[in-house]
Amino acid sequence: MTAVKSPLSDADRSTTGEALQGALADLIDLSLLAKQAHWNIVGPRFRSIHLQLDEVVTLARTYTDTVAERAAAIGVSPDGRAATVAKTSGLPEYPAGWVRDSDTIETLVAALGAIIARMRERIEATEKPDPVTQDLFIGLAAELEKEYWMFQAENQS
Amino acid sequence: MTAVKSPLSDADRSTTGEALQGALADLIDLSLLAKQAHWNIVGPRFRSIHLQLDEVVTLARTYTDTVAERAAAIGVSPDGRAATVAKTSGLPEYPAGWVRDSDTIETLVAALGAIIARMRERIEATEKPDPVTQDLFIGLAAELEKEYWMFQAENQS
Amino acid sequence: MTAVKSPLSDADRSTTGEALQGALADLIDLSLLAKQAHWNIVGPRFRSIHLQLDEVVTLARTYTDTVAERAAAIGVSPDGRAATVAKTSGLPEYPAGWVRDSDTIETLVAALGAIIARMRERIEATEKPDPVTQDLFIGLAAELEKEYWMFQAENQS
Amino acid sequence: MTAVKSPLSDADRSTTGEALQGALADLIDLSLLAKQAHWNIVGPRFRSIHLQLDEVVTLARTYTDTVAERAAAIGVSPDGRAATVAKTSGLPEYPAGWVRDSDTIETLVAALGAIIARMRERIEATEKPDPVTQDLFIGLAAELEKEYWMFQAENQS
Amino acid sequence: MTAVKSPLSDADRSTTGEALQGALADLIDLSLLAKQAHWNIVGPRFRSIHLQLDEVVTLARTYTDTVAERAAAIGVSPDGRAATVAKTSGLPEYPAGWVRDSDTIETLVAALGAIIARMRERIEATEKPDPVTQDLFIGLAAELEKEYWMFQAENQS
Amino acid sequence: MTAVKSPLSDADRSTTGEALQGALADLIDLSLLAKQAHWNIVGPRFRSIHLQLDEVVTLARTYTDTVAERAAAIGVSPDGRAATVAKTSGLPEYPAGWVRDSDTIETLVAALGAIIARMRERIEATEKPDPVTQDLFIGLAAELEKEYWMFQAENQS
Amino acid sequence: MTAVKSPLSDADRSTTGEALQGALADLIDLSLLAKQAHWNIVGPRFRSIHLQLDEVVTLARTYTDTVAERAAAIGVSPDGRAATVAKTSGLPEYPAGWVRDSDTIETLVAALGAIIARMRERIEATEKPDPVTQDLFIGLAAELEKEYWMFQAENQS
Amino acid sequence: MTAVKSPLSDADRSTTGEALQGALADLIDLSLLAKQAHWNIVGPRFRSIHLQLDEVVTLARTYTDTVAERAAAIGVSPDGRAATVAKTSGLPEYPAGWVRDSDTIETLVAALGAIIARMRERIEATEKPDPVTQDLFIGLAAELEKEYWMFQAENQS
Amino acid sequence: MTAVKSPLSDADRSTTGEALQGALADLIDLSLLAKQAHWNIVGPRFRSIHLQLDEVVTLARTYTDTVAERAAAIGVSPDGRAATVAKTSGLPEYPAGWVRDSDTIETLVAALGAIIARMRERIEATEKPDPVTQDLFIGLAAELEKEYWMFQAENQS
Amino acid sequence: MTAVKSPLSDADRSTTGEALQGALADLIDLSLLAKQAHWNIVGPRFRSIHLQLDEVVTLARTYTDTVAERAAAIGVSPDGRAATVAKTSGLPEYPAGWVRDSDTIETLVAALGAIIARMRERIEATEKPDPVTQDLFIGLAAELEKEYWMFQAENQS
Amino acid sequence: MTAVKSPLSDADRSTTGEALQGALADLIDLSLLAKQAHWNIVGPRFRSIHLQLDEVVTLARTYTDTVAERAAAIGVSPDGRAATVAKTSGLPEYPAGWVRDSDTIETLVAALGAIIARMRERIEATEKPDPVTQDLFIGLAAELEKEYWMFQAENQS
Amino acid sequence: MTAVKSPLSDADRSTTGEALQGALADLIDLSLLAKQAHWNIVGPRFRSIHLQLDEVVTLARTYTDTVAERAAAIGVSPDGRAATVAKTSGLPEYPAGWVRDSDTIETLVAALGAIIARMRERIEATEKPDPVTQDLFIGLAAELEKEYWMFQAENQS
Repeated sequence: MTAVKSPLSDADRSTTGEALQGALADLIDLSLLAKQAHWNIVGPRFRSIHLQLDEVVTLARTYTDTVAERAAAIGVSPDGRAATVAKTSGLPEYPAGWVRDSDTIETLVAALGAIIARMRERIEATEKPDPVTQDLFIGLAAELEKEYWMFQAENQS
Repeated sequence: MTAVKSPLSDADRSTTGEALQGALADLIDLSLLAKQAHWNIVGPRFRSIHLQLDEVVTLARTYTDTVAERAAAIGVSPDGRAATVAKTSGLPEYPAGWVRDSDTIETLVAALGAIIARMRERIEATEKPDPVTQDLFIGLAAELEKEYWMFQAENQS
Repeated sequence: MTAVKSPLSDADRSTTGEALQGALADLIDLSLLAKQAHWNIVGPRFRSIHLQLDEVVTLARTYTDTVAERAAAIGVSPDGRAATVAKTSGLPEYPAGWVRDSDTIETLVAALGAIIARMRERIEATEKPDPVTQDLFIGLAAELEKEYWMFQAENQS
Repeated sequence: MTAVKSPLSDADRSTTGEALQGALADLIDLSLLAKQAHWNIVGPRFRSIHLQLDEVVTLARTYTDTVAERAAAIGVSPDGRAATVAKTSGLPEYPAGWVRDSDTIETLVAALGAIIARMRERIEATEKPDPVTQDLFIGLAAELEKEYWMFQAENQS
Repeated sequence: MTAVKSPLSDADRSTTGEALQGALADLIDLSLLAKQAHWNIVGPRFRSIHLQLDEVVTLARTYTDTVAERAAAIGVSPDGRAATVAKTSGLPEYPAGWVRDSDTIETLVAALGAIIARMRERIEATEKPDPVTQDLFIGLAAELEKEYWMFQAENQS
Repeated sequence: MTAVKSPLSDADRSTTGEALQGALADLIDLSLLAKQAHWNIVGPRFRSIHLQLDEVVTLARTYTDTVAERAAAIGVSPDGRAATVAKTSGLPEYPAGWVRDSDTIETLVAALGAIIARMRERIEATEKPDPVTQDLFIGLAAELEKEYWMFQAENQS
Repeated sequence: MTAVKSPLSDADRSTTGEALQGALADLIDLSLLAKQAHWNIVGPRFRSIHLQLDEVVTLARTYTDTVAERAAAIGVSPDGRAATVAKTSGLPEYPAGWVRDSDTIETLVAALGAIIARMRERIEATEKPDPVTQDLFIGLAAELEKEYWMFQAENQS
Repeated sequence: MTAVKSPLSDADRSTTGEALQGALADLIDLSLLAKQAHWNIVGPRFRSIHLQLDEVVTLARTYTDTVAERAAAIGVSPDGRAATVAKTSGLPEYPAGWVRDSDTIETLVAALGAIIARMRERIEATEKPDPVTQDLFIGLAAELEKEYWMFQAENQS
Repeated sequence: MTAVKSPLSDADRSTTGEALQGALADLIDLSLLAKQAHWNIVGPRFRSIHLQLDEVVTLARTYTDTVAERAAAIGVSPDGRAATVAKTSGLPEYPAGWVRDSDTIETLVAALGAIIARMRERIEATEKPDPVTQDLFIGLAAELEKEYWMFQAENQS
Repeated sequence: MTAVKSPLSDADRSTTGEALQGALADLIDLSLLAKQAHWNIVGPRFRSIHLQLDEVVTLARTYTDTVAERAAAIGVSPDGRAATVAKTSGLPEYPAGWVRDSDTIETLVAALGAIIARMRERIEATEKPDPVTQDLFIGLAAELEKEYWMFQAENQS
Repeated sequence: MTAVKSPLSDADRSTTGEALQGALADLIDLSLLAKQAHWNIVGPRFRSIHLQLDEVVTLARTYTDTVAERAAAIGVSPDGRAATVAKTSGLPEYPAGWVRDSDTIETLVAALGAIIARMRERIEATEKPDPVTQDLFIGLAAELEKEYWMFQAENQS
Repeated sequence: MTAVKSPLSDADRSTTGEALQGALADLIDLSLLAKQAHWNIVGPRFRSIHLQLDEVVTLARTYTDTVAERAAAIGVSPDGRAATVAKTSGLPEYPAGWVRDSDTIETLVAALGAIIARMRERIEATEKPDPVTQDLFIGLAAELEKEYWMFQAENQS
């Protein structure tokens, strides 16, 4: 069933759709990873990081919706099911059990670094096929890089 | 690292912790499943169901947090990572691609029926070990059963 | 037409449904009775009681909805029509015409005493068949008994 | 006890009071009828109508209060007790049990048609005796006729 | 200086303007009288009446503005200066010094009775010359008569 | 297709419907004219008038909806399409390009004067056929005449 | 009737009470004067000054209440009746009829200058008898002098 | 009168101004068309589409203002008068009278498709002359294409 | 441990610190006393006084925090522990059990009278050592004396 | 004076009342202890813990009110006076003077551990006599145990 | 200390960082300049411009933060100290003392013209090195150019 | 141009104006210094201090406006331009580049200590010439000293 007509040509839709689907899996995984960290963090900086992680969750959830609905808007069915996320996310795995606050921050820095690199590629990949989607990725990169700075700043000994 | 002392005995903590971990995986999966449905629904009832599904997402996300923090509060590290959810959730799989509105509703009725049955078992299992956790499951069951009724009512031809 | 599947067995649904239907009629009547008092009170304490009565109305209306939707959620069609309320409510009748403030308070104390006694029975009756419904009645009893105290405190000469 | 002096002559007060008392019974019944429909509706349009019915409930409750307090303001004790409503309301009876969405709408159209006709008569009856009460009925008619249109629009096959 | 053109004929403007100017003086005086009562009331019902009087102040101030701007809108310069109010208001004088709560209520009932009688005359006087102004007086009368009822209800021994 | 039954007789519906349709075109045009002025005004009073014009836009848009839905409520399909507005509006044309602030005000005074005169006629025309619609026009006239006064007051040299 | 015991000695209460009663009359008059100006202003700066005047009204009304309740709090019955205000206010009279915007501003500057001078005297007079009342006057002077500056700034040609 | 200096060269201003003026006419027409649909829709999906159409109105109105003020900001007087819209809008005409819900949706899909195609051209046309305006069109296209998807999803049988 | 440097000299800090510590104990006790009264009041004026007492609680709690943090700000560790309050508060003891409304008011008048007298002494004591702290006590005295007036006004038979 | 009739038997009321009175003293003491900590904490984690402690204060104050009013609702006069709290609270004493952040957290963990143990006993003690009160204690335990986890998590070195 | 890793190459970071640092100094200066104007303006248009200038302050402050945090996010320490701003801002100096309203506007137009020209260069300079930063400058330019238009429109004689 | 008449004598105005101008420069510098710290802080306490610094910014900005407008209100033109601030501020210079969290706090403690000392002198200097300005400085000192305590408390190792 091809339910939704695309304002893009077939080739542009295919390139753009792939970028959006990849971003969707990354963002859902980021929201789960940040929640996992939010619950399992221990150490003297517990409260401060616990709260900061929920801002990452909110950011990831907001863009998850934007990205998925942009896929739909260009006629591509988005796939955000648990199995798809587990298989295709580009983020590093989060350790099981309680995690010290300093380790929590390091893992977040790594996760954000990974997702930012992938988003920068998507910004390039979508420039010609769909500037509307590119603009969405640019806004998302700005937010992720701001979080990246703040976790790095926090990470100085 | 046994980071958090439990207000429960070891046996009670084990039983209660297992129930909470199971509920956590189910609820995260429900939030992903309802979002998937929210994005991929097509058909004359699109808008009405599209909006209703986001209420399920909000419900699932709210209780995800409550359940995971309750686990932490009894000294059990909660596990809400994508792979864990994909492996251990008790909900039926959601189909790929666009889904008609009537099929969407039927899948939701099935998913809610499955999660309610599992929550009812958890209410019984936690009654003695931890009435505080049981009370949480009772409140959650009330909300899930209300959604169950509404999707069923919607499902009458 | 049996529109909504119940998460309860037939026997449990029947006991629980009866308790919910009884509570529904009592609560609608309480909301009408408190409004009648709100409009017809006269005397030096008019304003204070006039406002307090609207809090009872709000309480009764909120639980009316909760109780009726809980009935639906267990597959029982709720009946809140005027004739059903007039016939089956367990509350004492309210007098016609203007009512002095002290008499108003006494009538409210009597009405709240009656509905509390019936709710306490329903708490017992639903404990085994449906702890979710029992939890709802427990929360409702807490609110009604708080109002009961306040009208009694007001009633001291 | 004639508690409240009227700004109207005895004859005007009698005519106006009768109109207000009739409207009071009709409006309470409308609020109960719309809630009954809200809880018992089933069918594909469940959610949309379920929400719309609560707007009718809110409208009916708001004007119930306005009408009853206007009666008090002209020195007439309003009577909104369950038995009075059951006996004197001019609305058609609502069927017991679950009701299909299309039937729900038809019943609402009939109920609104009946109450509008009675309000139009009250607008005429109160023009001379009390323009203040007439103005209230005119505002109420505007709201009821807007709902009437929307349920009719919804009722086109 | 005839600054603002009137949408009314000269005769209609004159009649309507006079009614509005009279209402303006009455309403400013009512707002000052109710504030005076608000500050000087003593007795067991102090708090309840103290608060209720501020609702009368708010009502009077709101309509003061509406009435004065309506006068301007029909090309009549409104006069709300202290000396004009002191000379032309139709309300009874308020006693100096502390006033018992029961006396406070009686004075309010008298003041409201006086202003309502004058507003009813203005409703009649403006029907033909300007139905827009008449509608304003009708809405104002409804509010004043509601306060009149409530202070009378409070005034029953 | 005669979709919506009218609470009015055919003759009354026809008269009332015509008045509402005329008001609809006038009001949409007023909202476009005030926006045009809002964007194109230049001169020392730019900011003050720029903001005031948006209040006229809000007023016109609010009543546009009320008027159109009132037409629907009496069974008359409202017509607010661009071509209809361009052809049937009773407002003077607005000049092209930037407009000085003093000229802007003069044009607004003229436009408001024209629409008020037409509304006053509609108030008379609908008195007998439909007092509900008349009441709507009375409230609208009050708002328009208030704006009329304020732009005139602003227009004094 | 000496209803309220004072926290001050008789002499201090007398001095302080006199200052508060004087301030009360001035502030009520300021609120009426600013409203009069708000309604009767005409000229190119109509809207800007019309809005600014309502800020003066709000300021005057807020401090009217504070000043009167401070009088009551030190056991002095405040007198804010129309006749008292008309007789004892220290503000210049406001002219009748429409007033040009530049004249409006000049009158406001004069009125504010007069009330500020009187408040500065009250600050000195209450320093010893009651620093609590003095603090109130200091806060009030700050607000009045801010308005004084702004109307003067507006008054430069 | 060339009132506002442009931050753009003459050629860039001309290209950009033309794109903005075209978008302005399209967007005003879209807001009128969606309101027309909002009022005249009939059929079982009345309420759901009725509400959704008002979101389109809000979207169109918000961007109307943004587009017009952007034109002014680059020194081009925007023209949003009724006649200009009627003559230059690129949207299909909307049928007169009541319209079935399914036909309503189809018309909206067509209108959105048309306006999106024109906006995509404007995105290309303004890339070099003015990236600020282009960014505005990109954001607008994102919103329009989201609505386009949702009406298409709703349009599946 | 002398953790916080004072902006005051040692002597001034000592005097000011003592005044603040005394005020802290009084205010915590006032908040507990007013809550005790709030829960145990009975009699016809129950509701009105019940609500008024919570305003005293809020006032006492707000200033408790302000006073304690002012102590910290001048380098003095505040002591608000239960035993300290029980030993050093200057307020009269509150009786056990239910208390009639008139007795409740009398006790409040006595308690407020006592705390006001002590605050007036603290205003004098801190004038030279720390005008910042004095200003805080002046603001607090104004609030306490306002409550004192209102409970006295309520206390007139 | 036995002011308020109990919905419980004498024996059940006695058991339940004792549990509630004990909880009341504990909760008031917790609110004072957490405020004391809030003011006297020093060290690198000052701000984070300072804020977190106010959440404990809010939690304790909210349940203080709920617990005391539940006692009243079952006919038992609650006693929350300073001396009673100082004598009967089951919480450890808080040290005088400034307290390092790590010591602050340890004291909080100990205090929360003590109060949780006592609440768990009260949950058991009230199960049979009054499920309504038990439900209140269950909700309270959930909140306290959540705080307990968070302070423990913060306490990991 | 190189505290924060950049998502950009060294060359791109250097170009982008320079553009951001320049924008930061300009924006802080704009916020100080607009505040200076806000306080020192005199003349008949005082109030209108006084308010408008605070919108410029808000705009400048918001983007100051965005620009500085973007610099940090790409690993460049932002410098917003008073001396740096005084030395490196590209805005014209503001005159000392009171400034007439017309001169105030002219100075603002000049200041906005200068900052816009510099931002347009930064948009070009960052296009290749960092589209995320460019997007930020584009959004900022849109806001500045809107203010530029409005002050120019105000500046027409 | 001496635009604004002062309510003070020339000598008092001169002394007071000097104090206000000095405070203005200090406060603007404090707002820039705290923002600089907000952006450049690194280390484990990053987030907590980052947020706390914005509270200092808000405090400084609020009082900047109050102080400048107080200067205007006494007829003294305030000077808050970048060069004036850079030359006349009494605060220590802030270091360039990233700053560790502990160093950040120490710098803030020093800056707050310096500004508090200067404000205490201004409180003394303005006592006689203008108690209104003195009261402003007293309120400001209270806020600055509260921040001073909190940063010191945070600064304990």
